[in-house]
Amino acid sequence: MSAPERGVAMDAAELHAFMIDAFDRPLSWAIERVDADGVRVRQPVAGTDLRPGGTVSGPTLMGLADGVAYIAVLSHLGPAALAVTTNLNINFLRRPRPVDLVADARLLKLGRTLALVDVLIYADGGGPDDLERPVAQSVVTYSMALLTPPDPTGEPPA
Amino acid sequence: MSAPERGVAMDAAELHAFMIDAFDRPLSWAIERVDADGVRVRQPVAGTDLRPGGTVSGPTLMGLADGVAYIAVLSHLGPAALAVTTNLNINFLRRPRPVDLVADARLLKLGRTLALVDVLIYADGGGPDDLERPVAQSVVTYSMALLTPPDPTGEPPA
Amino acid sequence: MSAPERGVAMDAAELHAFMIDAFDRPLSWAIERVDADGVRVRQPVAGTDLRPGGTVSGPTLMGLADGVAYIAVLSHLGPAALAVTTNLNINFLRRPRPVDLVADARLLKLGRTLALVDVLIYADGGGPDDLERPVAQSVVTYSMALLTPPDPTGEPPA
Amino acid sequence: MSAPERGVAMDAAELHAFMIDAFDRPLSWAIERVDADGVRVRQPVAGTDLRPGGTVSGPTLMGLADGVAYIAVLSHLGPAALAVTTNLNINFLRRPRPVDLVADARLLKLGRTLALVDVLIYADGGGPDDLERPVAQSVVTYSMALLTPPDPTGEPPA
Repeated sequence: MSAPERGVAMDAAELHAFMIDAFDRPLSWAIERVDADGVRVRQPVAGTDLRPGGTVSGPTLMGLADGVAYIAVLSHLGPAALAVTTNLNINFLRRPRPVDLVADARLLKLGRTLALVDVLIYADGGGPDDLERPVAQSVVTYSMALLTPPDPTGEPPA
Repeated sequence: MSAPERGVAMDAAELHAFMIDAFDRPLSWAIERVDADGVRVRQPVAGTDLRPGGTVSGPTLMGLADGVAYIAVLSHLGPAALAVTTNLNINFLRRPRPVDLVADARLLKLGRTLALVDVLIYADGGGPDDLERPVAQSVVTYSMALLTPPDPTGEPPA
Repeated sequence: MSAPERGVAMDAAELHAFMIDAFDRPLSWAIERVDADGVRVRQPVAGTDLRPGGTVSGPTLMGLADGVAYIAVLSHLGPAALAVTTNLNINFLRRPRPVDLVADARLLKLGRTLALVDVLIYADGGGPDDLERPVAQSVVTYSMALLTPPDPTGEPPA
Repeated sequence: MSAPERGVAMDAAELHAFMIDAFDRPLSWAIERVDADGVRVRQPVAGTDLRPGGTVSGPTLMGLADGVAYIAVLSHLGPAALAVTTNLNINFLRRPRPVDLVADARLLKLGRTLALVDVLIYADGGGPDDLERPVAQSVVTYSMALLTPPDPTGEPPA
């Protein structure tokens, strides 16, 4: 397993294994990029993600936003993290075509008690502008309150 | 079918049938109340809604918030409505136990171009305070721009 | 000074004095109600609150939402509270006429690390429906991370 | 007056003059950059913006977010725009020192009925990282419903 980048506590393979273990089910997402700036995840859309009219359901986009933001927090804090989503705000900007979803997560803040992650989601059908016009924008907030008292077995929060 | 209340364009049975038709799959929700003040929906939690530690997943709560808010808009506008979710903001207030979810939706505004719905979600295990301490609060915003002129097909939104 | 209601740590007069002291300037708001359910504040609109067209500025509504929510938190926690606003989400529902603003704040959660307050703002010109059709709805989130250990000086938040 | 950039309907000087005219008072902001990607505004903090403890008030940050986002919309639509703020969501990330505020606004969407603008606010005291660690992040949503038909008077929004 390759060494994680500076400022990153887990690499893509470690994050993938952790997510499968934590949620106890197969993970349909590919973690395409993990670095100090953030995380990129690709999700193929399945039949249950679709809505009449050939678009992708809101809950699919919301689940992806929450998931990629959580992976971004984990990538900095390591597997001992106990981050609980306290707020998710999502703007649906454009109707996504039923192609792969690509989500870019970027940490706005990683504090002692709160972490905030900005997420942009794209519908990537291979077109030249597909990764420039987001279909959704989201900010997800996590509380790290449960990390106090510090867990002696795990890595301390940043 | 009983006549809808004043100010309400569809009753619970009509809304239930419309939702099944629109989303083309069984609806696990019971629409318990529809009146001028809003809508109450009950959702039993299934295995796929659960998370390790015996709680309910965020996407389940987000999907319920979006769904009950949409039903509240439909109940006032009738089946021709073409309302598209443009924003969903949700605060996760308390960790829900794995019991029935009950969601109360109340219209904040039903305008010509925007509708806003306030949602409170409870975890109802039958305890005396279960319907007084919400596990989540959400505001869902819909754009009704496409309603002008009214769509004769009543095609469902994304 | 009358004894505060059960569940309330400060009454209206104490809150008024505290706010003047904390912010070091006159308080144009009247705190009309403080009880276990929440707080009501009335704000006369001044010339600097107005916008061309005879309406009230967004920043005036945002400042009122933040202020009344903070008073609601204080009313439960007492003057030692060190609550810092971490998020404010506001929906502008209707264009307010240039009359008194009335803001009702209700605690959604008062936790160890986070407090969330729901706010409804009305434009009250004395009409029969003025306090039934909100002009804005807001949720304000506070971090109480600094409350541990309690601050004996009662220094006001930012 | 220099020609605006491609994709931009008004340049910095035109926007400055428009804002003074629209709000009928001096504008303390300097519009530092206007291009296809967005707008940068600098606001010196005044005494009334400060809070005890030497930080900047929340309402100052909220007013700046709303203002810079509006300028970003105007810069694309020109002075006939009648955009009304319908939602403002702001995350307070770090306590700002009492130095200049710098706000960067970027259009997420400029649609027929809705425009969404992402805003990052920095406290710029001249330090090397000051423009890399935002003190606040905001998304502001505007309704352009009243733009149809375009308003020839260029009357400013609320």
